[in-house]
Amino acid sequence: MQLTRAADYALRGMIFLARQDSLKYTRISEIADNEKVPEKFMRKLIHILNQKGYLESVRGKNGGIRLGRDPDKLSILDIVEAVEGPMALNLCLKEPSECDLKDICSMCSVWSEAQIALMAVLRKYSLTDMANDTTRKVV
Amino acid sequence: MQLTRAADYALRGMIFLARQDSLKYTRISEIADNEKVPEKFMRKLIHILNQKGYLESVRGKNGGIRLGRDPDKLSILDIVEAVEGPMALNLCLKEPSECDLKDICSMCSVWSEAQIALMAVLRKYSLTDMANDTTRKVV
Repeated sequence: MQLTRAADYALRGMIFLARQDSLKYTRISEIADNEKVPEKFMRKLIHILNQKGYLESVRGKNGGIRLGRDPDKLSILDIVEAVEGPMALNLCLKEPSECDLKDICSMCSVWSEAQIALMAVLRKYSLTDMANDTTRKVV
Repeated sequence: MQLTRAADYALRGMIFLARQDSLKYTRISEIADNEKVPEKFMRKLIHILNQKGYLESVRGKNGGIRLGRDPDKLSILDIVEAVEGPMALNLCLKEPSECDLKDICSMCSVWSEAQIALMAVLRKYSLTDMANDTTRKVV
């Protein structure tokens, strides 16, 4: 049970942007460099986050991206789910009606309880919280 | 972020065994059939759980497996970790010293908090709890 690389990298990128001037457009290559993420992978994730409305982008020589939402209003969970899809710790939580053990399996309620606990933590912190973390040095 | 098929199947098998007479040896094919798990996959998982000391096995015509521990003392978390290894929601929790962002990343403490919340739920329920679940029909 582990976070995907995609969600980890997307979070790094969004927290980096939350630390920039909100009006400034940042080049994707700069984000990728700073966050030690392969640029090609970062471009794919930016595309997903852009489609979700979490980013604004400008093309061209001085183009780049910036946050499209107030970072106070974007939680860690929002970013994880934008990239991984709706949280489902086990397949039975994704499509309960399609689980062929639904009438005989007792685990579904435990996965549900575990997922609620996990999501509560990830929903509690915003991009602003993470960007302001004092343990993070200014690059 | 999703449970592996291996951990899901291992749990199904262990809960099935927790519902049997504690002295009886059950054939792996019977567990696989009942829990709708491919038999070859179930055999691999049984091997891992056996090595961990969670099972006892007897070879031969009337052979099979049974629980090697009191099901009251085996939690859901024990089974998940036996198969997936120690819980680490993100790689940075697995090898903190090897994270090349450890000096500049603020996410580690959030992953840690989320993981503690998740593990607390999975540690709370034993195989006995799951075996006795009244929603589970006797096959």
